[in-house]
Amino acid sequence: MAPIRVGLIGLSTAASPQRPGAWAVLAHLPSILNSPDYQLVALANSTVESAKRSIEFHNLPPETRAYGNAVDLAQDDEVDLVVVSVNVQKRPNLVKPAILAGKDVFVEWPLGANSQEAREFASLAKAHGSRTIVGLQARADPLVLKTREVLASGKIGRVTSSSVFGCLSPLSTDVWIPGAEYYLDMESGGNAFTIFFGHFLDTFASVLGDFTNIQSILKTQYPTTNIVNDEGKVVHANHPKSAPDHIFVQGALEGGAVASLSFRSVPSAVDRTGFRWLISGTKGEIEVTVPELGWQLRSSEAALKVRVGKEEDIETVDLSTDPTSTKVPFPGSNTAGLYDAFAKGDSSKYATFEDAVKTHHLLDRIIQSSKLS
Amino acid sequence: MAPIRVGLIGLSTAASPQRPGAWAVLAHLPSILNSPDYQLVALANSTVESAKRSIEFHNLPPETRAYGNAVDLAQDDEVDLVVVSVNVQKRPNLVKPAILAGKDVFVEWPLGANSQEAREFASLAKAHGSRTIVGLQARADPLVLKTREVLASGKIGRVTSSSVFGCLSPLSTDVWIPGAEYYLDMESGGNAFTIFFGHFLDTFASVLGDFTNIQSILKTQYPTTNIVNDEGKVVHANHPKSAPDHIFVQGALEGGAVASLSFRSVPSAVDRTGFRWLISGTKGEIEVTVPELGWQLRSSEAALKVRVGKEEDIETVDLSTDPTSTKVPFPGSNTAGLYDAFAKGDSSKYATFEDAVKTHHLLDRIIQSSKLS
Repeated sequence: MAPIRVGLIGLSTAASPQRPGAWAVLAHLPSILNSPDYQLVALANSTVESAKRSIEFHNLPPETRAYGNAVDLAQDDEVDLVVVSVNVQKRPNLVKPAILAGKDVFVEWPLGANSQEAREFASLAKAHGSRTIVGLQARADPLVLKTREVLASGKIGRVTSSSVFGCLSPLSTDVWIPGAEYYLDMESGGNAFTIFFGHFLDTFASVLGDFTNIQSILKTQYPTTNIVNDEGKVVHANHPKSAPDHIFVQGALEGGAVASLSFRSVPSAVDRTGFRWLISGTKGEIEVTVPELGWQLRSSEAALKVRVGKEEDIETVDLSTDPTSTKVPFPGSNTAGLYDAFAKGDSSKYATFEDAVKTHHLLDRIIQSSKLS
Repeated sequence: MAPIRVGLIGLSTAASPQRPGAWAVLAHLPSILNSPDYQLVALANSTVESAKRSIEFHNLPPETRAYGNAVDLAQDDEVDLVVVSVNVQKRPNLVKPAILAGKDVFVEWPLGANSQEAREFASLAKAHGSRTIVGLQARADPLVLKTREVLASGKIGRVTSSSVFGCLSPLSTDVWIPGAEYYLDMESGGNAFTIFFGHFLDTFASVLGDFTNIQSILKTQYPTTNIVNDEGKVVHANHPKSAPDHIFVQGALEGGAVASLSFRSVPSAVDRTGFRWLISGTKGEIEVTVPELGWQLRSSEAALKVRVGKEEDIETVDLSTDPTSTKVPFPGSNTAGLYDAFAKGDSSKYATFEDAVKTHHLLDRIIQSSKLS
């Protein structure tokens, strides 16, 4: 089969993961270049010159086409898939032209700046027959896939509850990066709640089922932070932060289990664990642990343990990954997994716009519930 | 100072900790006998003969007085402190005579079968000038005392949140002991909710402060169990169990922190941990871990860790105990600590009736909140 021809929007020349705009460089570019199923044929940036600079900077073939806007890229007949890897606030004008032109579309998470926008994208894609992918990378994470397998095996019986400690320590409470202020803003749609928590929530609900009722507390214990530049200079002291740094959710799940998620901000986790996720059943229990980093990033130190009954031995599940996605190093390996699953048509390992809309909706319900408490 | 003369109600001849009625044998008797501050002078059981059998069985001095009811014991002028160690449902007629006779009183937890009864005891004790102790043993646990110390030191700064995983695995979901059916019954007042969860809740709120608002879910995932006798025979199949086996609580605390407690039933804990309690602050974080047993029982495997800032080293706090209470072995050592603190007048290490009423009230609020969800 001929490779899927990709047009990528948002490939900067940033190299450091701390830089806004680095994600396309760290995740999309190596995923596309390392896959036999994809071919990068075009870039679109804010100007043609910027796109050309990226082509040169990343040593892409000189025949790679350079566009200065998303509409021109969308008109390129030799592009099959448009990848949109830019801050959520800039997306509407980038996503829609691709869909209207009948392209398949890969959009980073969050899909929209709010549920309504996400639903709009999903309806439009459906109407125009676009196949869709959302950058909910953990859907391709071997940790998550193996967790699903253990659950499906029946080893732990019927799931009765699930409890999670999440640690927001990768997000500093006292300094922040210029240009990424949107992450501090609850209204931006791309913040600690929708991104850091949202990635985990998407996994949680897609593995265990949706919430049938929700109780939540969203608390901002650190209402300001300092914006500090590369030289260590405070460029904006006491910048307001409305995004919550404590996200406490509990409720009942569709299958009858009860659930509790408590996400906290702290300088660093006393147990060196960023996520500790228990899934408890009538016959046994699962523990998933991941170090202090974003849930979606696939850590080599992640662990999946299973204890059946009162057995003394606790099984550590092998998380060896398939060769396809491990060709791309951290933090891009799960993105490579999404590309791979999409090429193979295996929708159990990537999220569509419809899937993302569900997670948007669940985030909305958590916000609504927090206003009642 | 002359030793405090004790009259003990409820000393059986049971020896196994699995037996109803064993608590006085395992905790009160060794605590009293090993302390220079106390002298056991009288027993009251359901009959004088039963009290005499216990005196003989436990090799108590022959001059120990034997009573067949609580009123007679209360009239003994040479008793200073009456200890009531019987199932909560039998207590009213045992506690009140002692208070009315002006004795000091030590009552096991829960203080009352409900808040109202507990309040009644507390008012009566206040009116009659009785000094009181409640068997909330963890108040004397070095683990709890050291946790208070770390918090008071300011090492972790202002407390912003606290999250707890509790595991009810010490309470089997499929078999139960004849004679202890009250533990399965939400109405009895002495069950998994008030006892297993209540002991931890008392510590939590006395260390971190009361809840200013509460959201809760009480769920019974195992609505029946089998009552099985010593010979392994099922004496009552599918005995109803109304006490919750999943207790999920979240809310805000007086000091502004947010809190989450999720207590689950499972055959055994995948992390071999019965309680994992995080206390997170602006400058650092505490983790308390205890193996799978009752919170109040003082485990030699309990651990208290502190991480300050982003320091690589995590401090393990020394929990070496004072010599007084360690003379009494597991599971009585914390009870010995309560006796010791009472004799020394150190109310920071034991709970009074007033303290217990607060915890009763908090349990009530959790029940009320669960009915709203």
